[in-house]
Amino acid sequence: MFTELKREAYEANLEIPKQGLAIYTFGNVSAFDAARGVFAIKPSGVPYEQLTPDSMVIVDLDGEIVEGNGRPSSDTKTHAVLYRAFAGIGGICHSHSMYAVAWAQACREIPVFGTTHADHLTEPIPVTQPMDDAAIERDYEVETGHQIVERLRGLDPHEVEMIIVACHGPFTWGKTAQQAVYNSRVLEEIAQMAYLTRTINPVAPPIKETLIRKHYLRKHGAGAYYGQASEAAREGEPGQVETPDTVDGLK
Amino acid sequence: MFTELKREAYEANLEIPKQGLAIYTFGNVSAFDAARGVFAIKPSGVPYEQLTPDSMVIVDLDGEIVEGNGRPSSDTKTHAVLYRAFAGIGGICHSHSMYAVAWAQACREIPVFGTTHADHLTEPIPVTQPMDDAAIERDYEVETGHQIVERLRGLDPHEVEMIIVACHGPFTWGKTAQQAVYNSRVLEEIAQMAYLTRTINPVAPPIKETLIRKHYLRKHGAGAYYGQASEAAREGEPGQVETPDTVDGLK
Amino acid sequence: MFTELKREAYEANLEIPKQGLAIYTFGNVSAFDAARGVFAIKPSGVPYEQLTPDSMVIVDLDGEIVEGNGRPSSDTKTHAVLYRAFAGIGGICHSHSMYAVAWAQACREIPVFGTTHADHLTEPIPVTQPMDDAAIERDYEVETGHQIVERLRGLDPHEVEMIIVACHGPFTWGKTAQQAVYNSRVLEEIAQMAYLTRTINPVAPPIKETLIRKHYLRKHGAGAYYGQASEAAREGEPGQVETPDTVDGLK
Amino acid sequence: MFTELKREAYEANLEIPKQGLAIYTFGNVSAFDAARGVFAIKPSGVPYEQLTPDSMVIVDLDGEIVEGNGRPSSDTKTHAVLYRAFAGIGGICHSHSMYAVAWAQACREIPVFGTTHADHLTEPIPVTQPMDDAAIERDYEVETGHQIVERLRGLDPHEVEMIIVACHGPFTWGKTAQQAVYNSRVLEEIAQMAYLTRTINPVAPPIKETLIRKHYLRKHGAGAYYGQASEAAREGEPGQVETPDTVDGLK
Repeated sequence: MFTELKREAYEANLEIPKQGLAIYTFGNVSAFDAARGVFAIKPSGVPYEQLTPDSMVIVDLDGEIVEGNGRPSSDTKTHAVLYRAFAGIGGICHSHSMYAVAWAQACREIPVFGTTHADHLTEPIPVTQPMDDAAIERDYEVETGHQIVERLRGLDPHEVEMIIVACHGPFTWGKTAQQAVYNSRVLEEIAQMAYLTRTINPVAPPIKETLIRKHYLRKHGAGAYYGQASEAAREGEPGQVETPDTVDGLK
Repeated sequence: MFTELKREAYEANLEIPKQGLAIYTFGNVSAFDAARGVFAIKPSGVPYEQLTPDSMVIVDLDGEIVEGNGRPSSDTKTHAVLYRAFAGIGGICHSHSMYAVAWAQACREIPVFGTTHADHLTEPIPVTQPMDDAAIERDYEVETGHQIVERLRGLDPHEVEMIIVACHGPFTWGKTAQQAVYNSRVLEEIAQMAYLTRTINPVAPPIKETLIRKHYLRKHGAGAYYGQASEAAREGEPGQVETPDTVDGLK
Repeated sequence: MFTELKREAYEANLEIPKQGLAIYTFGNVSAFDAARGVFAIKPSGVPYEQLTPDSMVIVDLDGEIVEGNGRPSSDTKTHAVLYRAFAGIGGICHSHSMYAVAWAQACREIPVFGTTHADHLTEPIPVTQPMDDAAIERDYEVETGHQIVERLRGLDPHEVEMIIVACHGPFTWGKTAQQAVYNSRVLEEIAQMAYLTRTINPVAPPIKETLIRKHYLRKHGAGAYYGQASEAAREGEPGQVETPDTVDGLK
Repeated sequence: MFTELKREAYEANLEIPKQGLAIYTFGNVSAFDAARGVFAIKPSGVPYEQLTPDSMVIVDLDGEIVEGNGRPSSDTKTHAVLYRAFAGIGGICHSHSMYAVAWAQACREIPVFGTTHADHLTEPIPVTQPMDDAAIERDYEVETGHQIVERLRGLDPHEVEMIIVACHGPFTWGKTAQQAVYNSRVLEEIAQMAYLTRTINPVAPPIKETLIRKHYLRKHGAGAYYGQASEAAREGEPGQVETPDTVDGLK
């Protein structure tokens, strides 16, 4: 039934330790099937090396189990909120990667200090508000989702595919589960670069808007010229070359 | 006789280099058999790759050798003091892991800066007092144990399973030797996250009590919902899912 | 036709992930054939593990494709500008390596803090001016090349084989593609050493001119005595031992 | 003739990349035969993976080649000066390891911030004076040796087996070539720990003398109780357990 969806989630979860994004079980990925309104997600607390495609849990958009023997990730309801809110995304990744967590714990957004950042998004990496006590005690994982959605208000979730939850850590998403993990790895890289930049020059300014847009548009949109046109063509988007193609290549 | 206990200690010691917690021989783990009042511990100064289950030394709670050809770890008496003081623990790990040592050398406790920390304990990572001269010259390893026990006074050693010995480095413990190493790895991660957090924001505040308790109770106690219920059930603790299950899974 | 040139570019590109200089596809190398006025360069957006010698794209000094099925690196025109300007170089490497990017984002040149630096060049690692809006919107990759050439004015590109493009990252070059990558790895090492030096001692001074020249001349020029004379002899340069020999040995 | 000596030097040189102490060819080890007054040293500029026991160069205490086809390390004369000055040492290691170089470039000695340091020596890691112009231009490598010897005056080279050459990097030595590399790895660990300690607490004090001596004497001297007595016995030094035994075990 959900063979393909489970495999996509399974393979994307294996990218978490491979990319060094989490120790032990400190991260999870889900893959979404919009047509059926369900997603496959990592079972809670199971080490990556014990995962199998069949161990993925199928959950609906209320966070209820549709298929699977295990308990889904404790962050499942946060994933569900994001799938409801961000139409068109196909995967979500959450981890406790080192430098993204450091910025989360410092409660600071990450400025656009360079072109590595601008290659992926034109905005600072947003950080949510710390959650208030009432929300924490209401339905914590749902509220985490609400915080993310609230902070994204006014931004396009297809352009800003990553966020830092204050005091906690990163959530990223994308058209596929693989791209969600790719975005987590990129966020970690950007977070470390920004950390080092500020240490060398505490008053380092963000780069100028023209440079941000130039780099972003090299990789995204109708005029993009990064990557192989043939790959874009395979997706029926001539002239547009998205990073996910590259990431697919990593599988 | 002590075949199982030695194997547990042996396998847990191998986790030290695997988790990057020590170079050369800079760390040791022991496994405790409460019924017999003995523990198995790494032989002193032997590289991890030369260890065998049989090379583990069996020691009683006075630190006297019960079985084994080698000298036990020079930290053996510290382990003995902790097994006497903390009823119900089954393993202890000591290492010189990089970031935990840095906080130890800075003589600073580690504030609860985020949920990674709160997932494991609700308190700052405690740091002992520096030892006075008389204690150093009396019986150094025993006194190191006393310092740890003294600092834990008023805390539950089943909730706070890690400490930093001032000027020295981390000691961690748990229900099993594997969980003791798991706690050392988690402490190292938390220590690095806190280091980076303070560098980004020197006045970063600890997170609020409600968030600390929420995250801790997701993983611990009767209402825990992290991990697989079946695993908890296997241990006869329905509804409670402890991290050691996960760690066992890593073996 | 271009079998050898493609193989040189291919092997040098594989050094990028091997040396830890880039995640995903964040770096590219080219190899130049001066006699034919063409260079072989990595195809855009293709992961290193998918590269083959045949996937390299042959491009002329106007950046036009001479042979190859794929799109060349989006940085191709920058390479072309440098091959035109720096007579005698045979390879160029561009990456987003962590510490070099941090200095780029901080818009700071790297002082000659020690002999590791002086073993390779006698000047601070230069950093370009940030690009003005008109240039960004004109022909970005060509202008990036112009910035580099402008900043190198007055310096010898055979002595200063590395530069940091402000807000972006490192470009390095050398007599061969392998040496270009070698220089990128050395730059990353120097950049990290300088980062740490300044953190320990914010007013650390550069080393003195006599020491800089002594170390540089141990490795370069007629009186060099680093490396094996036989290797230098093989290149018909008795008495001069260049690092590329060493790097060739790494293949 | 020098088969054993060459093998000892060869194996110790292979430890340099294995322990992460140098990239490319940025480090060298020698092994000394006091009876014959010669030492075996790495050939200059040859990558570690190309080394063979036979490629080691045999040199006398004037730095003249006794046997071997290649040029010896460009640092050979510094080794020769140290073997002349420090009676009883059997190996020397020089590298450009990251954190030790950072302290060298910052021209700062490393205080005894914790027990990891005190386990190995009771003094701050000494740093030489920067070399004056006349010495640089006289005979640089010989003068580097003189600087080291000058700085060690008043210290016992069997107790302080490591030093940082200002603006350059670490030199370490020991009873064997393997212990010299061991000391380089330990110095790198101590250097990183001290770096992090100072960042957390810029006014962190050194630890007290009693604690320094306690830890040092656990591992060194007649009353040492770290390591296996049998190993000490094998060396005919009952009651004394030196770290080299451990390191030998790593071969």
